[in-house]
Amino acid sequence: MSETTGKLAELVGGKLNGDNKVEIHRVASLEDAQDGEISFIEKVEFDAPTKQSNASCLIVPENFETQLPCPFIQVKNPKLAFAKIAKVLHPYIGRSVWHEMVIVPESSEVRASFIGAFVTLGENTYIGEYTEIFDGVRIGNSVKIGKYSLIHPNCVIYDNVSIGSNCEIHAGTIIGADGFGFVRDENGYVKFPQIGMVVIEDDVEIGANSCVDRGALGETRIGKGTKIDNLVQIAHNVQIGERVVIAAQTGISGSTIIESDCIIGGQVGMGDHARIQSGAIIGSQAGVLPNKIVRAGVWWGTPVQPLDEYKRQNAHVKSLSRLKEEVKDLKKQIDALKNEKQTD
Amino acid sequence: MSETTGKLAELVGGKLNGDNKVEIHRVASLEDAQDGEISFIEKVEFDAPTKQSNASCLIVPENFETQLPCPFIQVKNPKLAFAKIAKVLHPYIGRSVWHEMVIVPESSEVRASFIGAFVTLGENTYIGEYTEIFDGVRIGNSVKIGKYSLIHPNCVIYDNVSIGSNCEIHAGTIIGADGFGFVRDENGYVKFPQIGMVVIEDDVEIGANSCVDRGALGETRIGKGTKIDNLVQIAHNVQIGERVVIAAQTGISGSTIIESDCIIGGQVGMGDHARIQSGAIIGSQAGVLPNKIVRAGVWWGTPVQPLDEYKRQNAHVKSLSRLKEEVKDLKKQIDALKNEKQTD
Amino acid sequence: MSETTGKLAELVGGKLNGDNKVEIHRVASLEDAQDGEISFIEKVEFDAPTKQSNASCLIVPENFETQLPCPFIQVKNPKLAFAKIAKVLHPYIGRSVWHEMVIVPESSEVRASFIGAFVTLGENTYIGEYTEIFDGVRIGNSVKIGKYSLIHPNCVIYDNVSIGSNCEIHAGTIIGADGFGFVRDENGYVKFPQIGMVVIEDDVEIGANSCVDRGALGETRIGKGTKIDNLVQIAHNVQIGERVVIAAQTGISGSTIIESDCIIGGQVGMGDHARIQSGAIIGSQAGVLPNKIVRAGVWWGTPVQPLDEYKRQNAHVKSLSRLKEEVKDLKKQIDALKNEKQTD
Repeated sequence: MSETTGKLAELVGGKLNGDNKVEIHRVASLEDAQDGEISFIEKVEFDAPTKQSNASCLIVPENFETQLPCPFIQVKNPKLAFAKIAKVLHPYIGRSVWHEMVIVPESSEVRASFIGAFVTLGENTYIGEYTEIFDGVRIGNSVKIGKYSLIHPNCVIYDNVSIGSNCEIHAGTIIGADGFGFVRDENGYVKFPQIGMVVIEDDVEIGANSCVDRGALGETRIGKGTKIDNLVQIAHNVQIGERVVIAAQTGISGSTIIESDCIIGGQVGMGDHARIQSGAIIGSQAGVLPNKIVRAGVWWGTPVQPLDEYKRQNAHVKSLSRLKEEVKDLKKQIDALKNEKQTD
Repeated sequence: MSETTGKLAELVGGKLNGDNKVEIHRVASLEDAQDGEISFIEKVEFDAPTKQSNASCLIVPENFETQLPCPFIQVKNPKLAFAKIAKVLHPYIGRSVWHEMVIVPESSEVRASFIGAFVTLGENTYIGEYTEIFDGVRIGNSVKIGKYSLIHPNCVIYDNVSIGSNCEIHAGTIIGADGFGFVRDENGYVKFPQIGMVVIEDDVEIGANSCVDRGALGETRIGKGTKIDNLVQIAHNVQIGERVVIAAQTGISGSTIIESDCIIGGQVGMGDHARIQSGAIIGSQAGVLPNKIVRAGVWWGTPVQPLDEYKRQNAHVKSLSRLKEEVKDLKKQIDALKNEKQTD
Repeated sequence: MSETTGKLAELVGGKLNGDNKVEIHRVASLEDAQDGEISFIEKVEFDAPTKQSNASCLIVPENFETQLPCPFIQVKNPKLAFAKIAKVLHPYIGRSVWHEMVIVPESSEVRASFIGAFVTLGENTYIGEYTEIFDGVRIGNSVKIGKYSLIHPNCVIYDNVSIGSNCEIHAGTIIGADGFGFVRDENGYVKFPQIGMVVIEDDVEIGANSCVDRGALGETRIGKGTKIDNLVQIAHNVQIGERVVIAAQTGISGSTIIESDCIIGGQVGMGDHARIQSGAIIGSQAGVLPNKIVRAGVWWGTPVQPLDEYKRQNAHVKSLSRLKEEVKDLKKQIDALKNEKQTD
């Protein structure tokens, strides 16, 4: 793919400075960019390396004023403009092949443009147009997948899972395995029924080797536009809203609710039946206790507390040594006062 | 499947109130339950929604006294009774198919009722009656699997692993990969031999994308009736007793012993050569140091301490701000006393 | 395989005491070792069980002086010698088979000695001599793998990944999935381009179900001789040096640099753009903040601090109860002094 600097500026609603006919065919980092490539800086404070860059075009903030040897495009949010231009210059090239060595039962309705090698689909499964099922994917019975979704190699989708359109599920991710619920009796553990569903709405991306368990009785749901990283655990009956971001290795326990527009760091652990309210930002490695309600704002630590409190508390802990010295000193002063008293 | 209220009450040894001939064919949650479905409440305190439920039968505690429009079954442990009834109404429907596109060497003895598509079995492998090996599973050489076990899609069982009967291993789980052991020499790391085995006893369930490494020289063992969640790491030579529960994303380092009837939360980390004694309950995200012995009781935090101590310590830390104020105030009072002294 | 005690002593440059013609065919632990097997003790302090061992040969430290009924080999580092001898007695037996049910495009150059069943290779892929691609592995386009590497079952290698020689990637590991980078706009998240590469140098071992993401624009790199455990997350553009060890379930965020010869414990979390300097040792469950520079030495806790400081601080926290009592006591003494004053 290739576009002119003029077209790219138009695409992102930016103001072009310089030649509008330079052909750009690739995005690159500021250091690596070469002839025919476009790069960006996020803030004017980072303008120094722009002068050394060999890029053929740069995306810069609106208040950028450095003189550059190449054309540059001024926009409000350079990183966002760069991401949008990357989509145009590096479009996903869809494939239109159905491999021979696949299992596709007659009861299933498969409109997918690509079915990779050694794929198995279950009964009564529906797969929408332009969706691609990569090599070695296993899809169970009564699964529904929308249009333009990508299911990467070796994913496993259990029975009764629904995945929307424009979703991307990376390799090795497991959707719809049994939730983890058992009831103890005198002999050991009896499994609580895990017969619910998973619903993944449109525009969801899930990283590699993650797990989304099915609902025990009801459903586990991941809302539209939510992005989930690698090795994340989503337990049974978890409800995740729209446009939530969850970083790698975080685990969400059963029935917890994450409302829309939350940002969850990596390696966070959440107990069951918690509720993360819209707009909450939870720092990496934080721990949310069961049933806890976390309001909008920035949270940190285990158990989670507002970031300010966490910092203050951390500072107190760090100054404990000094506090102990002070107490020791006060003790001496008091002893001195007492002695003076006696010698009065 | 369908059973009458009378039969179900009998099944769980409960006392039926109302019509014993109502046909029940499904379990459901209290809110979702409809005609022909059964639900439950755990405690009498939760009786309010029972009056609105559309369930055709409810399982309730023995001391439940609310009048209901539907038949209800009084039992000691309603959740347990519900789980047992779910097993009857939603039995696992075994399959009896051997796919054509599979690799089954002549040296192996395979009695399994189901071998899914694209499965590969190794040499000298034994698989018992009614066991199901799902699509894309890889099983190595000299593996032994008992009866009525389910190995979900894309699991990998390395050589020399033994899995008992009535086990369920969820998708993507890896059993028998090399343990992580290296010895440093002047050039880098030399691998310590990882030539031991894995033994998984009967009635064990392991979640999706978990890992159980083989013993370095001896064996890694998971005891009867133990239940392990998703994305759990069990290192080489770990010994886990019977009826242990381990939640998601927990990691157990090499040679650590978890005795029977322990409960381990999610994202717990255990150092090597620790011993968790029977009856210990370890809270989520806790950290157990290497060689630590953890006695029966509830433990929390990093490094783990008894829950009471953890709470007390946490309260102390939270009140540090006040303590600092107090010390400041004492300082003032002492200064005042000194001043008075001087002016005496 | 079988070697004489004399040959084994020579192999590890050790001093043999006793018969040099005893045939040894297997390594074993001190307790399990039987006739024809060799074992070791790490330190002279552990010499007690050597007298009961049924091993036919023992590897011991140089200053070992106990009289033994079997030949023993004195070396500087017995564990290292044992690991080297294990390699000789238990060599990996390479396989020379190409399965029929595989997808190998004509554009790829495959010299591998073993291609397992149901493997799929992409276009323009190169696989070196004696490398083994196990069952169900998916390899993308333009992938390059060196000689003598083992790619275990069901691994997924995305496009444009380079893996060196003598590497071992355990089952279910995903290399080259998209990094986790998004830019927020008014409607939700736009994906930042994830079009870089992954380079894995020679002699790298990666455990099961781990993830190594591709660079966003540049590359993610794992240096020569580095060893990575199970369920580890390596984000986009991470740079890991040579001979680094990373234990299970650790997560490294984007663009973080780990210099050569670091040791990272399990369940460690690192923020993005951090730098771990050569020789740093980071304890399990530690948390490294974004942009943090961690110098050589031993580090612990969240946020990481030098182990000594961590211990001191932990001791302070543990003694908070006493400190509070002391402050209370001082208050009483001051009140007493004031009262005396008034009664003066």
